[in-house]
Amino acid sequence: MPRVSAEHRAARREEIIDATVRCVAREGFHKTTMAAVIAESGLSAGAVYGYFKGKDELIRATAERTVGTFTGTLHAVATGPGPVTVAGTLGVLLQALETLAAQHDGAFPRVAVQAWAEALRDDQVAQLVRARVESLRSGWREVLERIRRDGGLAADADLDTMAQVVTGMLPGYILQRLLIGDVAPAPYAAALAALTDD
Amino acid sequence: MPRVSAEHRAARREEIIDATVRCVAREGFHKTTMAAVIAESGLSAGAVYGYFKGKDELIRATAERTVGTFTGTLHAVATGPGPVTVAGTLGVLLQALETLAAQHDGAFPRVAVQAWAEALRDDQVAQLVRARVESLRSGWREVLERIRRDGGLAADADLDTMAQVVTGMLPGYILQRLLIGDVAPAPYAAALAALTDD
Repeated sequence: MPRVSAEHRAARREEIIDATVRCVAREGFHKTTMAAVIAESGLSAGAVYGYFKGKDELIRATAERTVGTFTGTLHAVATGPGPVTVAGTLGVLLQALETLAAQHDGAFPRVAVQAWAEALRDDQVAQLVRARVESLRSGWREVLERIRRDGGLAADADLDTMAQVVTGMLPGYILQRLLIGDVAPAPYAAALAALTDD
Repeated sequence: MPRVSAEHRAARREEIIDATVRCVAREGFHKTTMAAVIAESGLSAGAVYGYFKGKDELIRATAERTVGTFTGTLHAVATGPGPVTVAGTLGVLLQALETLAAQHDGAFPRVAVQAWAEALRDDQVAQLVRARVESLRSGWREVLERIRRDGGLAADADLDTMAQVVTGMLPGYILQRLLIGDVAPAPYAAALAALTDD
Protein backbone atom coordinates (compact mmCIF):
# COMPACT_ATOMS: atom_id res chain seq x y z
CA MET A 1 0.00 0.00 0.00
CA PRO A 2 1.53 3.36 -1.00
CA ARG A 3 2.12 5.94 1.70
CA VAL A 4 0.46 9.21 0.84
CA SER A 5 0.91 12.56 2.49
CA ALA A 6 -1.84 14.36 4.38
CA GLU A 7 -1.69 17.12 1.73
CA HIS A 8 -2.21 14.58 -1.01
CA ARG A 9 -5.19 13.07 0.81
CA ALA A 10 -6.74 16.50 1.41
CA ALA A 11 -6.32 17.47 -2.26
CA ARG A 12 -7.85 14.18 -3.41
CA ARG A 13 -10.79 14.69 -1.06
CA GLU A 14 -11.39 18.16 -2.53
CA GLU A 15 -11.28 16.72 -6.05
CA ILE A 16 -14.05 14.27 -5.14
CA ILE A 17 -16.15 17.06 -3.62
CA ASP A 18 -15.62 19.12 -6.80
CA ALA A 19 -16.88 16.21 -8.89
CA THR A 20 -19.93 15.94 -6.62
CA VAL A 21 -20.70 19.66 -6.98
CA ARG A 22 -20.59 19.34 -10.79
CA CYS A 23 -22.88 16.29 -10.73
CA VAL A 24 -25.43 17.92 -8.41
CA ALA A 25 -25.45 21.19 -10.40
CA ARG A 26 -26.26 19.18 -13.53
CA GLU A 27 -28.62 16.51 -12.23
CA GLY A 28 -29.88 17.58 -8.81
CA PHE A 29 -29.24 15.67 -5.57
CA HIS A 30 -31.67 12.89 -6.26
CA LYS A 31 -30.00 11.65 -9.42
CA THR A 32 -26.44 12.05 -8.16
CA THR A 33 -25.16 8.54 -7.38
CA MET A 34 -21.79 7.29 -6.15
CA ALA A 35 -21.31 5.81 -9.64
CA ALA A 36 -21.90 9.24 -11.25
CA VAL A 37 -19.42 10.91 -8.88
CA ILE A 38 -16.82 8.19 -9.51
CA ALA A 39 -17.18 8.65 -13.29
CA GLU A 40 -17.07 12.44 -12.99
CA SER A 41 -13.96 12.38 -10.76
CA GLY A 42 -11.98 10.09 -13.07
CA LEU A 43 -10.82 8.14 -10.01
CA SER A 44 -11.35 4.48 -9.24
CA ALA A 45 -14.33 3.32 -7.18
CA GLY A 46 -11.90 2.09 -4.51
CA ALA A 47 -10.23 5.51 -4.32
CA VAL A 48 -13.54 7.37 -3.91
CA TYR A 49 -14.90 4.92 -1.32
CA GLY A 50 -11.59 5.31 0.54
CA TYR A 51 -12.62 8.90 1.28
CA PHE A 52 -16.41 8.68 1.54
CA LYS A 53 -18.34 5.66 2.73
CA GLY A 54 -21.41 6.55 0.70
CA LYS A 55 -23.59 9.21 -0.88
CA ASP A 56 -24.83 10.64 2.42
CA GLU A 57 -21.32 11.34 3.68
CA LEU A 58 -20.38 12.87 0.34
CA ILE A 59 -23.42 15.15 0.17
CA ARG A 60 -22.83 16.27 3.76
CA ALA A 61 -19.16 17.14 3.03
CA THR A 62 -20.21 19.03 -0.12
CA ALA A 63 -22.84 21.07 1.70
CA GLU A 64 -20.45 21.77 4.57
CA ARG A 65 -17.72 23.09 2.33
CA THR A 66 -19.94 25.41 0.30
CA VAL A 67 -22.01 27.00 3.05
CA GLY A 68 -19.11 26.89 5.54
CA THR A 69 -17.42 29.62 3.50
CA PHE A 70 -20.14 32.15 4.38
CA THR A 71 -20.10 31.47 8.10
CA GLY A 72 -16.33 32.08 8.02
CA THR A 73 -16.86 35.33 6.13
CA LEU A 74 -19.40 36.57 8.70
CA HIS A 75 -17.12 35.64 11.61
CA ALA A 76 -14.26 37.57 9.98
CA VAL A 77 -16.47 40.66 9.63
CA ALA A 78 -17.75 40.39 13.21
CA THR A 79 -14.24 40.20 14.64
CA GLY A 80 -12.45 42.46 12.14
CA PRO A 81 -11.71 46.20 12.11
CA GLY A 82 -14.70 48.59 12.03
CA PRO A 83 -16.93 50.21 11.11
CA VAL A 84 -19.34 47.31 10.51
CA THR A 85 -22.78 47.84 8.93
CA VAL A 86 -25.53 45.44 7.85
CA ALA A 87 -25.36 46.59 4.22
CA GLY A 88 -21.56 46.49 4.17
CA THR A 89 -21.62 42.94 5.56
CA LEU A 90 -24.16 41.88 2.93
CA GLY A 91 -21.80 43.27 0.26
CA VAL A 92 -18.89 41.20 1.63
CA LEU A 93 -21.08 38.09 1.79
CA LEU A 94 -22.33 38.51 -1.79
CA GLN A 95 -18.75 39.02 -2.95
CA ALA A 96 -17.80 35.73 -1.23
CA LEU A 97 -20.70 34.13 -3.12
CA GLU A 98 -19.48 35.53 -6.44
CA THR A 99 -15.97 34.20 -5.73
CA LEU A 100 -17.39 30.75 -5.00
CA ALA A 101 -19.63 30.95 -8.08
CA ALA A 102 -16.63 31.76 -10.30
CA GLN A 103 -15.21 28.33 -9.45
CA HIS A 104 -16.57 25.09 -10.96
CA ASP A 105 -18.45 26.83 -13.81
CA GLY A 106 -20.89 28.54 -11.48
CA ALA A 107 -22.02 25.23 -9.98
CA PHE A 108 -22.36 26.48 -6.40
CA PRO A 109 -25.47 28.68 -6.59
CA ARG A 110 -27.20 26.05 -8.74
CA VAL A 111 -26.42 23.39 -6.14
CA ALA A 112 -27.92 25.61 -3.43
CA VAL A 113 -31.24 25.90 -5.29
CA GLN A 114 -31.31 22.13 -5.92
CA ALA A 115 -30.69 21.58 -2.20
CA TRP A 116 -33.69 23.75 -1.22
CA ALA A 117 -36.05 21.81 -3.50
CA GLU A 118 -34.62 18.46 -2.47
CA ALA A 119 -35.00 19.38 1.21
CA LEU A 120 -38.79 19.41 0.74
CA ARG A 121 -38.74 15.79 -0.42
CA ASP A 122 -35.88 14.23 1.50
CA ASP A 123 -35.54 14.53 5.25
CA GLN A 124 -31.77 13.99 5.32
CA VAL A 125 -31.20 16.84 2.88
CA ALA A 126 -33.68 18.93 4.91
CA GLN A 127 -31.59 18.39 8.06
CA LEU A 128 -28.45 19.43 6.21
CA VAL A 129 -29.97 22.58 4.74
CA ARG A 130 -31.55 23.48 8.09
CA ALA A 131 -28.17 23.18 9.82
CA ARG A 132 -26.62 25.46 7.16
CA VAL A 133 -29.38 28.05 7.58
CA GLU A 134 -28.92 27.95 11.36
CA SER A 135 -25.18 28.44 10.97
CA LEU A 136 -25.72 31.44 8.67
CA ARG A 137 -28.10 32.92 11.24
CA SER A 138 -25.49 32.47 14.01
CA GLY A 139 -22.89 34.17 11.82
CA TRP A 140 -25.22 37.10 11.18
CA ARG A 141 -26.11 37.25 14.86
CA GLU A 142 -22.44 37.64 15.73
CA VAL A 143 -22.22 40.53 13.22
CA LEU A 144 -25.36 42.17 14.63
CA GLU A 145 -23.99 41.88 18.19
CA ARG A 146 -20.82 43.60 17.03
CA ILE A 147 -22.87 46.41 15.42
CA ARG A 148 -24.91 46.80 18.61
CA ARG A 149 -21.73 46.89 20.72
CA ASP A 150 -20.43 49.65 18.44
CA GLY A 151 -23.66 51.62 19.01
CA GLY A 152 -25.20 51.01 15.55
CA LEU A 153 -28.27 49.19 16.90
CA ALA A 154 -30.53 49.86 19.88
CA ALA A 155 -29.69 48.01 23.13
CA ASP A 156 -33.08 46.25 23.01
CA ALA A 157 -32.95 45.39 19.27
CA ASP A 158 -34.42 41.95 18.48
CA LEU A 159 -31.20 40.48 17.05
CA ASP A 160 -32.62 36.98 16.53
CA THR A 161 -35.36 38.16 14.19
CA MET A 162 -33.00 40.64 12.52
CA ALA A 163 -30.67 37.68 11.86
CA GLN A 164 -33.59 35.87 10.17
CA VAL A 165 -34.26 38.87 7.93
CA VAL A 166 -30.66 39.33 6.81
CA THR A 167 -30.14 35.57 6.39
CA GLY A 168 -33.22 35.70 4.17
CA MET A 169 -31.53 38.09 1.74
CA LEU A 170 -29.12 35.52 0.31
CA PRO A 171 -31.62 33.18 -1.42
CA GLY A 172 -33.32 36.08 -3.23
CA TYR A 173 -29.98 37.35 -4.50
CA ILE A 174 -29.03 33.84 -5.68
CA LEU A 175 -32.33 33.37 -7.54
CA GLN A 176 -32.22 36.75 -9.28
CA ARG A 177 -28.57 36.14 -10.18
CA LEU A 178 -29.33 32.75 -11.75
CA LEU A 179 -32.65 33.57 -13.40
CA ILE A 180 -32.21 37.19 -14.50
CA GLY A 181 -28.51 37.83 -14.03
CA ASP A 182 -28.66 41.61 -13.54
CA VAL A 183 -27.68 41.77 -9.86
CA ALA A 184 -24.19 42.40 -8.46
CA PRO A 185 -22.80 42.69 -4.89
CA ALA A 186 -21.86 46.40 -4.84
CA PRO A 187 -25.10 47.99 -6.15
CA TYR A 188 -27.19 45.49 -4.17
CA ALA A 189 -25.39 46.39 -0.93
CA ALA A 190 -25.56 50.12 -1.79
CA ALA A 191 -29.35 49.90 -2.29
CA LEU A 192 -29.72 48.18 1.08
CA ALA A 193 -27.51 50.87 2.63
CA ALA A 194 -29.82 53.56 1.18
CA LEU A 195 -32.85 51.69 2.58
CA THR A 196 -31.26 51.31 6.03
CA ASP A 197 -29.56 54.72 6.10
CA ASP A 198 -26.20 53.02 6.78
CA MET B 1 -73.82 19.68 -25.34
CA PRO B 2 -74.89 21.18 -22.00
CA ARG B 3 -74.89 24.95 -21.63
CA VAL B 4 -72.80 26.02 -18.68
CA SER B 5 -72.58 29.42 -17.14
CA ALA B 6 -69.42 31.54 -17.13
CA GLU B 7 -69.34 31.20 -13.32
CA HIS B 8 -69.45 27.43 -13.58
CA ARG B 9 -66.63 27.43 -16.14
CA ALA B 10 -64.50 29.71 -13.98
CA ALA B 11 -65.04 27.56 -10.88
CA ARG B 12 -64.17 24.40 -12.82
CA ARG B 13 -61.01 26.04 -14.12
CA GLU B 14 -59.97 26.95 -10.56
CA GLU B 15 -60.59 23.35 -9.46
CA ILE B 16 -58.20 22.10 -12.13
CA ILE B 17 -55.55 24.64 -11.10
CA ASP B 18 -56.00 23.54 -7.46
CA ALA B 19 -55.39 19.94 -8.49
CA THR B 20 -52.25 21.03 -10.36
CA VAL B 21 -50.93 22.90 -7.31
CA ARG B 22 -51.37 19.79 -5.17
CA CYS B 23 -49.62 17.58 -7.75
CA VAL B 24 -46.67 19.95 -8.13
CA ALA B 25 -46.25 20.40 -4.36
CA ARG B 26 -46.04 16.61 -4.01
CA GLU B 27 -44.06 15.60 -7.10
CA GLY B 28 -42.38 18.71 -8.51
CA PHE B 29 -43.06 20.16 -11.96
CA HIS B 30 -41.17 17.52 -13.88
CA LYS B 31 -43.25 14.58 -12.72
CA THR B 32 -46.61 16.37 -12.91
CA THR B 33 -48.36 15.04 -16.00
CA MET B 34 -51.79 15.77 -17.49
CA ALA B 35 -52.77 12.24 -16.39
CA ALA B 36 -51.76 13.00 -12.79
CA VAL B 37 -53.75 16.26 -12.79
CA ILE B 38 -56.79 14.54 -14.29
CA ALA B 39 -56.66 11.84 -11.59
CA GLU B 40 -56.14 14.42 -8.82
CA SER B 41 -59.03 16.59 -10.05
CA GLY B 42 -61.52 13.73 -10.21
CA LEU B 43 -62.74 15.10 -13.56
CA SER B 44 -62.75 13.35 -16.91
CA ALA B 45 -59.84 13.77 -19.32
CA GLY B 46 -62.23 15.45 -21.77
CA ALA B 47 -63.29 17.97 -19.13
CA VAL B 48 -59.72 18.89 -18.20
CA TYR B 49 -58.58 19.17 -21.83
CA GLY B 50 -61.60 21.38 -22.46
CA TYR B 51 -59.97 23.99 -20.21
CA PHE B 52 -56.26 23.44 -20.84
CA LYS B 53 -54.74 22.21 -24.09
CA GLY B 54 -51.75 20.69 -22.33
CA LYS B 55 -49.30 20.73 -19.47
CA ASP B 56 -47.59 23.98 -20.54
CA GLU B 57 -50.82 25.94 -20.50
CA LEU B 58 -51.77 24.45 -17.15
CA ILE B 59 -48.42 25.22 -15.53
CA ARG B 60 -48.54 28.79 -16.85
CA ALA B 61 -52.05 29.35 -15.45
CA THR B 62 -50.97 27.90 -12.09
CA ALA B 63 -47.90 30.14 -11.87
CA GLU B 64 -49.91 33.19 -12.94
CA ARG B 65 -52.56 32.70 -10.31
CA THR B 66 -50.16 32.19 -7.42
CA VAL B 67 -47.65 34.97 -8.07
CA GLY B 68 -50.31 37.29 -9.49
CA THR B 69 -51.70 37.65 -5.97
CA PHE B 70 -48.54 39.41 -4.76
CA THR B 71 -48.40 41.89 -7.60
CA GLY B 72 -52.01 42.80 -6.81
CA THR B 73 -51.12 43.24 -3.13
CA LEU B 74 -48.22 45.57 -3.97
CA HIS B 75 -50.38 47.64 -6.33
CA ALA B 76 -53.01 48.01 -3.61
CA VAL B 77 -50.37 49.26 -1.14
CA ALA B 78 -48.87 51.69 -3.70
CA THR B 79 -52.24 53.24 -4.47
CA GLY B 80 -53.84 52.96 -1.02
CA PRO B 81 -53.94 55.35 1.95
CA GLY B 82 -50.64 56.25 3.64
CA PRO B 83 -48.24 56.18 5.29
CA VAL B 84 -46.40 53.55 3.22
CA THR B 85 -43.05 52.08 4.37
CA VAL B 86 -40.81 49.33 2.96
CA ALA B 87 -41.07 47.25 6.13
CA GLY B 88 -44.84 47.78 6.38
CA THR B 89 -45.25 46.66 2.77
CA LEU B 90 -43.13 43.56 3.40
CA GLY B 91 -45.43 42.73 6.32
CA VAL B 92 -48.52 43.00 4.09
CA LEU B 93 -46.85 40.86 1.40
CA LEU B 94 -45.84 38.14 3.88
CA GLN B 95 -49.36 38.14 5.29
CA ALA B 96 -50.70 37.61 1.74
CA LEU B 97 -48.25 34.71 1.44
CA GLU B 98 -49.49 33.18 4.71
CA THR B 99 -53.09 33.48 3.51
CA LEU B 100 -52.20 31.72 0.27
CA ALA B 101 -50.21 29.09 2.19
CA ALA B 102 -53.19 28.35 4.43
CA GLN B 103 -55.09 27.15 1.35
CA HIS B 104 -54.40 23.78 -0.32
CA ASP B 105 -52.49 22.33 2.67
CA GLY B 106 -49.63 24.79 2.34
CA ALA B 107 -48.92 23.75 -1.25
CA PHE B 108 -48.11 27.23 -2.55
CA PRO B 109 -44.71 27.92 -0.97
CA ARG B 110 -43.61 24.37 -1.81
CA VAL B 111 -44.61 24.88 -5.43
CA ALA B 112 -42.56 28.09 -5.54
CA VAL B 113 -39.39 26.29 -4.39
CA GLN B 114 -39.99 23.49 -6.94
CA ALA B 115 -40.38 26.14 -9.63
CA TRP B 116 -37.02 27.74 -8.81
CA ALA B 117 -35.17 24.40 -9.06
CA GLU B 118 -37.05 23.40 -12.20
CA ALA B 119 -36.24 26.75 -13.82
CA LEU B 120 -32.54 25.78 -13.80
CA ARG B 121 -33.26 22.70 -15.86
CA ASP B 122 -36.18 23.69 -18.06
CA ASP B 123 -36.17 26.84 -20.15
CA GLN B 124 -39.97 27.16 -20.31
CA VAL B 125 -40.26 27.11 -16.54
CA ALA B 126 -37.32 29.56 -16.38
CA GLN B 127 -39.22 32.02 -18.61
CA LEU B 128 -42.28 31.70 -16.40
CA VAL B 129 -40.39 32.26 -13.15
CA ARG B 130 -38.42 35.14 -14.69
CA ALA B 131 -41.67 36.86 -15.74
CA ARG B 132 -43.04 36.43 -12.20
CA VAL B 133 -39.87 37.90 -10.64
CA GLU B 134 -40.03 40.85 -13.06
CA SER B 135 -43.66 41.44 -12.15
CA LEU B 136 -42.83 41.39 -8.42
CA ARG B 137 -40.05 43.91 -9.07
CA SER B 138 -42.47 46.21 -10.94
CA GLY B 139 -44.91 45.97 -8.06
CA TRP B 140 -42.20 46.89 -5.57
CA ARG B 141 -41.01 49.70 -7.83
CA GLU B 142 -44.49 51.19 -7.77
CA VAL B 143 -44.44 51.05 -3.95
CA LEU B 144 -40.97 52.64 -3.80
CA GLU B 145 -42.09 55.44 -6.16
CA ARG B 146 -45.01 56.08 -3.85
CA ILE B 147 -42.67 56.23 -0.81
CA ARG B 148 -40.36 58.61 -2.67
CA ARG B 149 -43.30 60.82 -3.68
CA ASP B 150 -44.31 60.96 -0.01
CA GLY B 151 -40.77 62.08 0.90
CA GLY B 152 -39.63 58.79 2.48
CA LEU B 153 -36.79 58.20 -0.02
CA ALA B 154 -34.22 60.56 -1.56
CA ALA B 155 -35.10 62.09 -4.94
CA ASP B 156 -32.07 60.37 -6.51
CA ALA B 157 -32.62 56.98 -4.82
CA ASP B 158 -31.80 54.01 -7.10
CA LEU B 159 -35.31 52.54 -7.07
CA ASP B 160 -34.53 49.77 -9.60
CA THR B 161 -31.83 48.23 -7.42
CA MET B 162 -33.88 48.82 -4.28
CA ALA B 163 -36.70 46.89 -5.97
CA GLN B 164 -34.26 43.99 -6.54
CA VAL B 165 -33.28 43.98 -2.86
CA VAL B 166 -36.84 43.97 -1.51
CA THR B 167 -38.00 41.44 -4.13
CA GLY B 168 -35.11 39.29 -2.88
CA MET B 169 -36.58 39.14 0.62
CA LEU B 170 -39.49 36.85 -0.29
CA PRO B 171 -37.53 33.67 -1.21
CA GLY B 172 -35.53 33.77 2.03
CA TYR B 173 -38.70 34.09 4.08
CA ILE B 174 -40.29 31.19 2.16
CA LEU B 175 -37.27 28.92 2.71
CA GLN B 176 -36.97 29.66 6.43
CA ARG B 177 -40.73 29.17 6.79
CA LEU B 178 -40.65 25.75 5.10
CA LEU B 179 -37.38 24.45 6.52
CA ILE B 180 -37.32 25.87 10.04
CA GLY B 181 -40.81 27.24 10.55
CA ASP B 182 -40.01 29.89 13.14
CA VAL B 183 -40.67 33.02 11.03
CA ALA B 184 -43.89 35.05 10.92
CA PRO B 185 -44.93 38.21 9.02
CA ALA B 186 -45.26 40.66 11.94
CA PRO B 187 -41.92 40.11 13.73
CA TYR B 188 -40.10 39.77 10.39
CA ALA B 189 -41.47 43.13 9.21
CA ALA B 190 -40.78 44.70 12.62
CA ALA B 191 -37.13 43.58 12.47
CA LEU B 192 -36.78 45.08 8.99
CA ALA B 193 -38.39 48.28 10.28
CA ALA B 194 -35.79 48.42 13.09
CA LEU B 195 -33.00 47.88 10.53
CA THR B 196 -34.38 50.57 8.20
CA ASP B 197 -35.49 52.99 10.92
CA ASP B 198 -39.01 53.02 9.42
